[in-house]
Amino acid sequence: MAVLGAAGRMGSTTVRAVESAPDLELVAALDASDDLAKVAAAGAQVAVDFTVPSVTEGNVHALVDAGVHAVVGTTGWDDAARARVRDHLADRPDVGVLIAPNFALGAVLTMAFAARAARWFESVEIVELHHPDKVDAPSGTALHTAHAVARARRAAGVEASPDATEQSLDGARGALVDDVRVHAVRLRGLTAHEEVLLGNPGEQLTIRHDSFDRVSFMPGVLLAVRQVGSRPGLTVGLEHLLDLA
Amino acid sequence: MAVLGAAGRMGSTTVRAVESAPDLELVAALDASDDLAKVAAAGAQVAVDFTVPSVTEGNVHALVDAGVHAVVGTTGWDDAARARVRDHLADRPDVGVLIAPNFALGAVLTMAFAARAARWFESVEIVELHHPDKVDAPSGTALHTAHAVARARRAAGVEASPDATEQSLDGARGALVDDVRVHAVRLRGLTAHEEVLLGNPGEQLTIRHDSFDRVSFMPGVLLAVRQVGSRPGLTVGLEHLLDLA
Amino acid sequence: MAVLGAAGRMGSTTVRAVESAPDLELVAALDASDDLAKVAAAGAQVAVDFTVPSVTEGNVHALVDAGVHAVVGTTGWDDAARARVRDHLADRPDVGVLIAPNFALGAVLTMAFAARAARWFESVEIVELHHPDKVDAPSGTALHTAHAVARARRAAGVEASPDATEQSLDGARGALVDDVRVHAVRLRGLTAHEEVLLGNPGEQLTIRHDSFDRVSFMPGVLLAVRQVGSRPGLTVGLEHLLDLA
Amino acid sequence: MAVLGAAGRMGSTTVRAVESAPDLELVAALDASDDLAKVAAAGAQVAVDFTVPSVTEGNVHALVDAGVHAVVGTTGWDDAARARVRDHLADRPDVGVLIAPNFALGAVLTMAFAARAARWFESVEIVELHHPDKVDAPSGTALHTAHAVARARRAAGVEASPDATEQSLDGARGALVDDVRVHAVRLRGLTAHEEVLLGNPGEQLTIRHDSFDRVSFMPGVLLAVRQVGSRPGLTVGLEHLLDLA
Repeated sequence: MAVLGAAGRMGSTTVRAVESAPDLELVAALDASDDLAKVAAAGAQVAVDFTVPSVTEGNVHALVDAGVHAVVGTTGWDDAARARVRDHLADRPDVGVLIAPNFALGAVLTMAFAARAARWFESVEIVELHHPDKVDAPSGTALHTAHAVARARRAAGVEASPDATEQSLDGARGALVDDVRVHAVRLRGLTAHEEVLLGNPGEQLTIRHDSFDRVSFMPGVLLAVRQVGSRPGLTVGLEHLLDLA
Repeated sequence: MAVLGAAGRMGSTTVRAVESAPDLELVAALDASDDLAKVAAAGAQVAVDFTVPSVTEGNVHALVDAGVHAVVGTTGWDDAARARVRDHLADRPDVGVLIAPNFALGAVLTMAFAARAARWFESVEIVELHHPDKVDAPSGTALHTAHAVARARRAAGVEASPDATEQSLDGARGALVDDVRVHAVRLRGLTAHEEVLLGNPGEQLTIRHDSFDRVSFMPGVLLAVRQVGSRPGLTVGLEHLLDLA
Repeated sequence: MAVLGAAGRMGSTTVRAVESAPDLELVAALDASDDLAKVAAAGAQVAVDFTVPSVTEGNVHALVDAGVHAVVGTTGWDDAARARVRDHLADRPDVGVLIAPNFALGAVLTMAFAARAARWFESVEIVELHHPDKVDAPSGTALHTAHAVARARRAAGVEASPDATEQSLDGARGALVDDVRVHAVRLRGLTAHEEVLLGNPGEQLTIRHDSFDRVSFMPGVLLAVRQVGSRPGLTVGLEHLLDLA
Repeated sequence: MAVLGAAGRMGSTTVRAVESAPDLELVAALDASDDLAKVAAAGAQVAVDFTVPSVTEGNVHALVDAGVHAVVGTTGWDDAARARVRDHLADRPDVGVLIAPNFALGAVLTMAFAARAARWFESVEIVELHHPDKVDAPSGTALHTAHAVARARRAAGVEASPDATEQSLDGARGALVDDVRVHAVRLRGLTAHEEVLLGNPGEQLTIRHDSFDRVSFMPGVLLAVRQVGSRPGLTVGLEHLLDLA
């Protein structure tokens, strides 16, 4: 297999993870200056793309043309870009592409479980906690989770969480994301953490993910590399590989 | 609908919950001395059984004979007893029976999610926490969860959680239940709580259920009452009603 | 001893707690319509006041005049009212009055420990969680804790917690209370909970209090009743009885 | 100042921390092969010892002889060794020695707060969580905490935590350390974590420390370096520097 963006943080971590996986062989590690033709020339069957938003879509189309399955962790994909890949793959029914916004199994499972549980509880709120050097609040993962939870509740006809607040200091009740309250804590020492709190009369369900280190993405990346060849077409999201049914 | 064992703690809580549910009508509330024929005589379509192990199986067979769907929360059912109900229901394909060891939605979801997540993590341990008047340790719920987790890991070919412990005080590492470590905390002020901890390099997933009060069982009981009529045959476990796929 | 406001929720809980304490004897339980002279007439040495803001100050002065020690849990005391009690007690050096905004030992300890720890950490934030019928956010306890933490940090010359947030949804980062971020979660099933999170490079300290039931105030009330007689003058806050030095 | 054991993990982390502290100057970094006389020769006023149990006591006596204050993080000190240092310091009233089993401020505060809180609660248990490569269970920190909690409860005449357990799987209730239950979790992805759970009727207090990285020891080491010169004699434990009264 091949790694694109091999000099970056995620790319180099992937290179090391592949090298220590006995069932995988790294045949090409490309940086920004390398020609993508090297991937096919090296005989790679799967390529992992951890590059940058400006080149990732072009990379994927080139890989599809070359008949190489692609696992994509680069951000910046919108609906239109995904649709173009889906169209392209219609002509190449033997090739699989997996685009995942998050490869941490725990984060993916947190979102999937939260969405499944949300319709069964009166209340749901999200608390995300990160290191204080983060520039955006709430985190993208928390926003995704809030939307997934809100969609599941709407589909089941569940009302918004009850809230009798009348007097509130600005910001105390968090940000309202698609009718779900999201609170962002910033604390020195932390990395990336998310907690989904669900409440019913007399009980609480909490689903929490702690990410301590970017090595946490590697089991998910390797899982995608191993499975993408047997999933022709476009797959969006690692949850489809996790056998959650 | 009808409630059997209406004078008990769970039964009387069910009576109150049914009375405040606008879509359900209570037509019979039976105690130990009452004749089961009252259920059908009152026109109940569904009966909830919160009685005692010695009579619950007889109740269920009588309800099936009378064409009344049954929701059973009484403990004490073993494989043989369940098989007898299944056989009986083969003759009554219009009747549904649901037997659930636990009606707290959060507890049922915790077990279901833990089982689904377990194969994706290197390590898994369970901590349960209860009030100090509890006589057994670990709790039945924690034992069920441990077995569910262990089954899922075996089915996926996952090894036991790593553990390099060489020197240990007796009991420090918890009880080993089907290769899963289970720790039981007893603390004044608590009710019933369970935490499943799953770990991979660089990340942790935690699924926690807090039960503060037995009213937490009521959403699950009412859900079962509403659905049992459309599920002919025997259903074991509330998770089958929760649309988790 | 005597209980004022004995028909209220806190007052009646106090009556029951005193009745089951072998070392205390209840000699008077007064409601709004009762004459305060009954307290001294009954020979009470200590009176607990769980009445209402409009009468509590008058009660305390009357108790001091009668030479009865007072434990006050009623809210609504400001600096001026406390000063008037202090002045009055200067003439009665044998009488003790204890006014406490919170009798839950765990809540009092959480605040005391948070204040002591705050100067040693770069970051501190507070998350409080309550049932969704609460009308104010954040809770009074969380506001008190934030101010106590802020005072301790200012006294030690510690800077505000680091925060690089540039893009934020309204409310995501909580309310800013005296330079401390406070987040308020509202969730069905909860009672009253507070979490103080402190962070340094590579470590986190968390102090959390869960209040499940108003019986949690009783150990603190009884402690105050037992000690107030040996603490002449005015004491504000239960923490002074907890031997924290 | 000087660092002894500068090539070890803790020593080299200390070297880097001192180098980035504007108010401290590193004048000597010694490894096992270096002569201790270099410390005084370089003009160091304070030396930090992160060496090995077999040499640390000799180092401290040599530093005291040379009039250099010592901060000691090496393990292996017993009562007799500490007494010998105390005796030696009686002849050098100008020199300070601080021996600390733990420099993580959060861990030290957890133990101090747990000891102060323990007498006010009916129940107390400890859960420690570490990576699965750890060979001993429970951790030394958890053992220290259990003993500190037990001493505080005995001194206050508090009974052992209530526990009605009659049927238990081996190990479920943890290890009994000085009448305190201690549970040890081992989970991939974790570093070193400790949770002290305290319970009363209706309430719970939780004090939790998470150590994610050994940089967490550095604020405590630098605090000790800055203060040891103004604390003549022997000080055991960082808590004495934390102004907890």
